[in-house]
Amino acid sequence: MEDAKLTEVKRSFVLPEFGKNDIIIDGLFGTGLNKPLTGGFATLVKSINKSKASVISIDIPSGMFAEDNSGNTKGTFIKANKTFTFQFPKMAFFLPEDGEFVGEWEVLNIDLHPEAISKTTTSNYYLRKENVEKIIKSRSVFSHKGTFGHALLIAGSYGKMGAAVLSSKGCLRAGAGLLTVHVPEKGNVIMQTSVPEAMLDVDLNEKYFSEITFFPKKYNAVGIGPGLGTEQISSDAFFQLLRQIKVPLVLDADALNLLDSPEKIDRIPEGTILTPHVGEFNRLAGVSPVVSSYQRLLAAIEFAAQTKTYVVLKGAYTAVCTPERNCFFNETGNPGMATAGSGDALTGIILGLLAQGYSSRDAAILGVYLHGLAGDIAAKKLSQEGLMASDIIESLPLAFKEIRV
Amino acid sequence: MEDAKLTEVKRSFVLPEFGKNDIIIDGLFGTGLNKPLTGGFATLVKSINKSKASVISIDIPSGMFAEDNSGNTKGTFIKANKTFTFQFPKMAFFLPEDGEFVGEWEVLNIDLHPEAISKTTTSNYYLRKENVEKIIKSRSVFSHKGTFGHALLIAGSYGKMGAAVLSSKGCLRAGAGLLTVHVPEKGNVIMQTSVPEAMLDVDLNEKYFSEITFFPKKYNAVGIGPGLGTEQISSDAFFQLLRQIKVPLVLDADALNLLDSPEKIDRIPEGTILTPHVGEFNRLAGVSPVVSSYQRLLAAIEFAAQTKTYVVLKGAYTAVCTPERNCFFNETGNPGMATAGSGDALTGIILGLLAQGYSSRDAAILGVYLHGLAGDIAAKKLSQEGLMASDIIESLPLAFKEIRV
Amino acid sequence: MEDAKLTEVKRSFVLPEFGKNDIIIDGLFGTGLNKPLTGGFATLVKSINKSKASVISIDIPSGMFAEDNSGNTKGTFIKANKTFTFQFPKMAFFLPEDGEFVGEWEVLNIDLHPEAISKTTTSNYYLRKENVEKIIKSRSVFSHKGTFGHALLIAGSYGKMGAAVLSSKGCLRAGAGLLTVHVPEKGNVIMQTSVPEAMLDVDLNEKYFSEITFFPKKYNAVGIGPGLGTEQISSDAFFQLLRQIKVPLVLDADALNLLDSPEKIDRIPEGTILTPHVGEFNRLAGVSPVVSSYQRLLAAIEFAAQTKTYVVLKGAYTAVCTPERNCFFNETGNPGMATAGSGDALTGIILGLLAQGYSSRDAAILGVYLHGLAGDIAAKKLSQEGLMASDIIESLPLAFKEIRV
Amino acid sequence: MEDAKLTEVKRSFVLPEFGKNDIIIDGLFGTGLNKPLTGGFATLVKSINKSKASVISIDIPSGMFAEDNSGNTKGTFIKANKTFTFQFPKMAFFLPEDGEFVGEWEVLNIDLHPEAISKTTTSNYYLRKENVEKIIKSRSVFSHKGTFGHALLIAGSYGKMGAAVLSSKGCLRAGAGLLTVHVPEKGNVIMQTSVPEAMLDVDLNEKYFSEITFFPKKYNAVGIGPGLGTEQISSDAFFQLLRQIKVPLVLDADALNLLDSPEKIDRIPEGTILTPHVGEFNRLAGVSPVVSSYQRLLAAIEFAAQTKTYVVLKGAYTAVCTPERNCFFNETGNPGMATAGSGDALTGIILGLLAQGYSSRDAAILGVYLHGLAGDIAAKKLSQEGLMASDIIESLPLAFKEIRV
Repeated sequence: MEDAKLTEVKRSFVLPEFGKNDIIIDGLFGTGLNKPLTGGFATLVKSINKSKASVISIDIPSGMFAEDNSGNTKGTFIKANKTFTFQFPKMAFFLPEDGEFVGEWEVLNIDLHPEAISKTTTSNYYLRKENVEKIIKSRSVFSHKGTFGHALLIAGSYGKMGAAVLSSKGCLRAGAGLLTVHVPEKGNVIMQTSVPEAMLDVDLNEKYFSEITFFPKKYNAVGIGPGLGTEQISSDAFFQLLRQIKVPLVLDADALNLLDSPEKIDRIPEGTILTPHVGEFNRLAGVSPVVSSYQRLLAAIEFAAQTKTYVVLKGAYTAVCTPERNCFFNETGNPGMATAGSGDALTGIILGLLAQGYSSRDAAILGVYLHGLAGDIAAKKLSQEGLMASDIIESLPLAFKEIRV
Repeated sequence: MEDAKLTEVKRSFVLPEFGKNDIIIDGLFGTGLNKPLTGGFATLVKSINKSKASVISIDIPSGMFAEDNSGNTKGTFIKANKTFTFQFPKMAFFLPEDGEFVGEWEVLNIDLHPEAISKTTTSNYYLRKENVEKIIKSRSVFSHKGTFGHALLIAGSYGKMGAAVLSSKGCLRAGAGLLTVHVPEKGNVIMQTSVPEAMLDVDLNEKYFSEITFFPKKYNAVGIGPGLGTEQISSDAFFQLLRQIKVPLVLDADALNLLDSPEKIDRIPEGTILTPHVGEFNRLAGVSPVVSSYQRLLAAIEFAAQTKTYVVLKGAYTAVCTPERNCFFNETGNPGMATAGSGDALTGIILGLLAQGYSSRDAAILGVYLHGLAGDIAAKKLSQEGLMASDIIESLPLAFKEIRV
Repeated sequence: MEDAKLTEVKRSFVLPEFGKNDIIIDGLFGTGLNKPLTGGFATLVKSINKSKASVISIDIPSGMFAEDNSGNTKGTFIKANKTFTFQFPKMAFFLPEDGEFVGEWEVLNIDLHPEAISKTTTSNYYLRKENVEKIIKSRSVFSHKGTFGHALLIAGSYGKMGAAVLSSKGCLRAGAGLLTVHVPEKGNVIMQTSVPEAMLDVDLNEKYFSEITFFPKKYNAVGIGPGLGTEQISSDAFFQLLRQIKVPLVLDADALNLLDSPEKIDRIPEGTILTPHVGEFNRLAGVSPVVSSYQRLLAAIEFAAQTKTYVVLKGAYTAVCTPERNCFFNETGNPGMATAGSGDALTGIILGLLAQGYSSRDAAILGVYLHGLAGDIAAKKLSQEGLMASDIIESLPLAFKEIRV
Repeated sequence: MEDAKLTEVKRSFVLPEFGKNDIIIDGLFGTGLNKPLTGGFATLVKSINKSKASVISIDIPSGMFAEDNSGNTKGTFIKANKTFTFQFPKMAFFLPEDGEFVGEWEVLNIDLHPEAISKTTTSNYYLRKENVEKIIKSRSVFSHKGTFGHALLIAGSYGKMGAAVLSSKGCLRAGAGLLTVHVPEKGNVIMQTSVPEAMLDVDLNEKYFSEITFFPKKYNAVGIGPGLGTEQISSDAFFQLLRQIKVPLVLDADALNLLDSPEKIDRIPEGTILTPHVGEFNRLAGVSPVVSSYQRLLAAIEFAAQTKTYVVLKGAYTAVCTPERNCFFNETGNPGMATAGSGDALTGIILGLLAQGYSSRDAAILGVYLHGLAGDIAAKKLSQEGLMASDIIESLPLAFKEIRV
C-alpha cells in the first residue's frame, strides 16, 4: 500500500485507468442523500465498481442509504472493500443485500458530543460484549441444581434425532441445572448414548412427538421444535401443550412450521422466544421471500410487537426483535456457523438460560451473543469450513469465560 | 482499594453516607455473643447492610452465631463481602442460610497455642488436601486387576440410563479394577457404546431393575441407585438383594427414595454410605424441608449415628457424617457442579474407592474431596455454566494427580 | 557424512568394495536413454544395488525411463536412496513399481528458461499447495446454510454402516451446509449417535439400500457408494436413481463395483467423479491386475476421457484424471492413510465440496489435496501406524487452515 | 539424605535402634548363597525389616536367591527400599512374591568384560527399547491397505461387547490395514457406533458366537477371545474354525478358557500367541494357583515349548515365552494398567501387528512393549487410578512415535 497511487476522485465523470494497486477514496456522497443516484453520478459509480482499484468508503458507500434501500437502485452503490463509518454502524450494514457493498467496516470516532448521542433516540442497537457483560449473572456458592432450573426440551423425530442431541448439549453447556428431553421411542438409545446427563421422557409413539404424558409442572422453561417434524399427531400434541405452558418458552424450527395460520400464531404465549431463520420467518409471518431484507426486518419487528414475542431472526448479524420494537444486531458469529445443527444448538442455549431464570429478553440476547462467540472461537481453531455444530457447543464454555474476563 | 476511605465504625448508631468505595470493618461483636442483636445494634446492622460500602468482618459477621443460628434473627446479621476468621472457620460458614452472610472467607492465624488447639475437642472438621493426602494409597508394582477389586453397580432404568453411564465412568476413573453394571435390557446398547470397559449383567426386565440373577459373590463393593427408578418390582429386588450384600455398599438417588419407612431404613447394612442431596435426605430422615440447615445437619449426624451409616449430605461444603458423630465439611467444589449427573459421578467414584479396599469412611471422605477437586479443575477450564457432569469425570485423573503432588 | 568416502563411479565395470558409509553418486545415464541397460552397464547397476553404499541419483536413477518403464528391465535400474531431479519430478516417480527405485526425491532448480518451460506442453501436473490456494473460495459474511448447499449421501449397509459415518463426517467437516444421509433402517441409531449434524432419509429396507422415497430435488450434490454393498436390490435402486440425478455426483466403493459392464458404465452422468483404488479401477475398466502402473494410468486417463468423468485413482500420489486427459499427481498423503475408512472420508470430503458449488474438477483436486494434507497432519501427531480414518477427518479443519495461510 | 546417619551393618547380631532417617546398606550376602538364611543371620534380617530405617541392598536383597526362591524362606529376605544390582537385573526381581522385597531397582555397571557377557548363555531377557527399535518396520511410500493386512477379530457376546470395541480399536491403532470383526447380532449397533473404521461380519446368533459364515480366506491374521463367553455353541464354532485357520493367530480370554482339556490344547495351531493372565494360565496349563511365580514361569516356558506357541503371561513385567524356551520380561507398564479392558487392548494390538506381517515372535514382543509404553504415557498424564483401557489405546500412537525417535 506504500507504493500505491492514492487517488481522490473529484467531480469528474471520466475515470483514469485504475490498476489493482490503486486505492479510491469514496467520500463523495454522504448518508444525507436519500434518493438513488442517477445520470453521471450513477455512471461514475459503475465505472468505479468495474475498475480493479480498491475502494475505501467514508461513512457509507456512495449511493447507499443508511437504513432502507428497498426503493434504491442497487447498481448505483459503490462496492467498497472497506468502509470507515462515523460513530455508529448504519443499519444497512447488517442487511444482506446492502451489507455486501460495505466490505469490511470499522467505526471512526468523530467525537460526537455525548449529549447529542444520548439525546438521539433509537430502537436499534449493535449488541456488543459490554452489553452482555451486564446481563450475565454470578453464581452463589450455596446454589444447587434447583437454583439453575429444570428445562424441558421437546425435540427430535425419526431420522432427525440429531437435532435433539445438539439442542440438549447446548442447553446443558449453557448452565441448566437439570434437563428432561421428551423424545419418540426410537430416540431413546441415541439420546442416552450421546447426552447421558439428560433424562428422557419417552413418547408412546415410536417416531413422532404425540403427547406429553406428565404435565410439566416441575419444569422452569420449555423449548420445542428442533427436528420435531410436522406430522399431524405432533401438531395436535403441540397445540394441546401450548395451552398449558405457564413458564418461559422458546420455539424453533418445526415448532415454527406448525404455526401455519394467524389463528395458530395467536396461541403463542406472550413472552415466547421464536428463533426462525429467514425462510422460516417468511412462512411464519407470511412475508414474500423476495422482499428486501429491510422490509423483512420491519416485518419481524412488527411481528414481535403484535404477538408480544421475541423474534430472533437468524443470519449474519442475527437480529433480536423485542415486543417493545427494539432490535439488537449481534456482533458475534461467522459464515462457518451456516452449518447443519447450528440453530439447534442456539435453541438449546436459550432454553438453558431461561431455565436459570434469565428473562426472555436477556436469554435471547445473551444466547445469541454466546452462540456467535462460541462459533468465532471454534472457527479460529477449526476454520470456517471445518466447523461443525458440535464444535460450537464445545466452545460454549470458552465463550462464557471470555465474557466474564 | 488504595484510594478508598477506610472507616472503622464506632459505637455510634448514626451512620455517615457510604459510597461504594467505602469499606466498613466489622469488628464489633465477636463470636462470644450468643443472643440475637436487638435495639440499636440491630438498627445499626440494618443500616450497614443497606449501604453501598464494602464490609469486611473480623472473625464472624456481627450478629451471627458460630454454630446454630436457628433461633437467631436473620435480619440482624452483618452481610459481609469478606470475612477474616480467627484460626478456624466457624460451622455456620458451611450452612446455606448463614454462609451467604459471610461472603468470601479466609482464615487468620492468631497463633493459638498448639496445645490449646489439640485440647479443644471437636467432632467437626474442615476437610482439606492435607487430610486426603494421608488417606490415598500407593499402588504396588505387582498389583493386578484383582488388587483393585470388582465393583457391582446397579443403576439405570428406561429414560434414565445416562445416570448409569456417568456412575460407571466415575467408578472406573476412580481406579476400580473391574466393573460389572446391572442394567435393564434396554440399557445394553447405551452402556456398551458409552463405557466399553464395563461388563454388563443384563436384567430380564426390559426397562427396570427386577432381580440379580447371580448372587454377587465375586464383587468387592456394591453401588445402587443412580437412575434406578422407584417401580415396585425394583423395590422388591432391592430389598431382597440388601439382605445378601456382605461387602461395602453405597446407596444414592432412587435407592434412597426406596427407603421410605423406618422399617426399611433398618435394613441398611451397617457401614453403608448414603449420598443424599438435601431433598433426598429430608424424605429419607423425615425432616421438614423448612428447618434450618443447622437442624438438618444435626439430623444427618443423628441419622448416621443411629443407622451406623456414613451420610454424605451433598451441597456446598458437602458434609460427611460418620457413625461416630464426626462431620467433615468438604473444601472443594463449586456452583458449576450443581448440574445434572454430578451426583451420579460421585456415587461411582465412591464405589470405585470401596472396590479398591478403602474403608467406608475413607472412601466417603476421599470420594467427596476428589469429586469436588475434579469439578474445580473442570470449572477453571470450562466456566461454571459450561461444565457438565462428564467433564467432572474427565477431570478426575487430574484431581488424583493433584493430591499426589 | 563428513567422514564418509565420496566416490564417483567412472566408466569402470569393476567396483571396489563399498561399506555402508560410502556414497555413490549416480550421474552416469540420464533420462535421454530410452532403452533398457544391457551388458556391462547392467552388470554395474546390479553390483551397485548389491553394495552397502548409499546411492544418490542425479535427475533419475540410471536405467529408468522418465515415463513408461513397462518395456524396461527392472533389475537394471539403480536403486537410489535419494534422487535430485532436474526442474520437475518425472512421471515414473509417481508409479509404485518405479517410484520405489527413486528413494526420497527433491527437485533441483537448473534455471531452465521460463519460456522453455511454458512452451513445453504437458498434460501431467504435480499438484501442490500453490495450485489449491487458487481454487479455494472465500466465504461471504452474509452466507447461510443454503449458500453451502445440501448434500445427499447414499451409503452404508448391514455391517458396513461405519463407512457412512466416516463419509458423513468428511462431508460436514469439508463445509457442506446441510447433509442428508440415506441409510437402511438398521443404520438409524448408529448414524444419529455418531453424526448428530446429519439428517437421515431412512430406507424401508432394514439392511440394504433399496429405494429413494423422495426424489432429491433439494440436493445440490450426491455421493453414492461407501459401505453400500452390492445386493441386487441396491443395484436396481442405484441405476434407477442414476437416471434422475442432474446435480454433481461422486461415486465410490460399491457404487463402482455395481458398474460391472460397459453398458452400465455408459449410464454414469457426464462430469461425475469416480474414486476407485487400484483394485476397484481394474474391475471397473477391465484392466488386468498385472499390467504396469503406467499402463493402468494410461487406462485411467483414457477411461476419464471416454466416459467424460473425473477418475481419482487412489494410492501414493493419487492421480486425478480429467475428461480433457489431464492428470494431477497429488503431493500430500502418507502410508499411514492406507487404513480402513480413509477412502470413505475422501468421498465425503469431495461431496462436501461439490455441495458448496465447487466444479467437479476443483472438488476432485481440492478434495484429494485436503484429504492428503489432513492425513499428513494426523500422522505427524499420531504416527503412521497409530492413525485411523477418524483422525484424518478430525485433522481436516487444520488442513483448511494451512492452505489458507 | 545429607544429614542422615549412614550405617553399615557389621557381622553383629545386635542392632542399634534405627530411626526413619537411618539408612542401612545391605551388602552382606550376595547372590552366591543358595540356601535359606538361618540362625543369627535370619534373626538379623528380621530385625532390620522391623526397623524404621531405609534399606539399600547391593546386587540383591540378602537372603534372596537370584532365580528360584520356591524353596527359600520368605521371612529371611531383606526388604529393601532400593536395590542397586550388578550389570543385570536378576530374574527374581520380575516375580511378584520376590520382586516386592527388591523395592525400586537400578542396574550398576560393574564393567564386566563384554566377552564374559556374550559367553554367558541365557534364555531370559529384559525387553527394552533398544530391542523393539530393531523389530519395528518402516513403511514404504507406495504401500496400500493391502500392504498392512486384513485382520479378523472374533470377540464379544451379550453384555461383553465392550471387549470387542477395545480390541478393535487396539488393532486399528496398531496399524492394521483393514479389520473385520465377527460379532453376535446384538453387537451390531455398539460396534459400528464405537469403531466406524471396522467392518462387521454379523453372526446369525443374537448373543453369542455360533459360526463364521464365510471362511476367512481373505484374512492375514486372526484374533479370538475378548468377551467371547464360553457357551457350548461358541465352543463348537471355535474348534471348528481352529481347524481351518492357516494364518497367524492370537487367542485371549474366553478363547483360552475354552481350551479346557489337553486334547483341546493339542488343537492350537503352532506359532499361535496366547495371552493369559495368571488365573487364565493356571486353568489352561493345569497349574495350581498356589505355586510360586517362579514355578509358574517355568510352567509357562514349558507350555510354550510343548505346544510350540508364544505364551504372553500378563502381569507386572509381562513375560513373553517362546517355543525355543526363551523368555522376555517387559520393561514397560505400570499398576494403573491393572484395569478392565487392558488385556482386550493388548490382544487387538498384537492382532494388528500380525496383520501387518510381523512374525508371531515379533508381534508378541513388540505388542507387549507398545502396550506397556502406551500405558506409561497415559498414566503420566492421567494418574494410575484415573487411567482407563481406552486411554491406553489413545496413547498407542504416542508410543509408536516414542520408539521411532
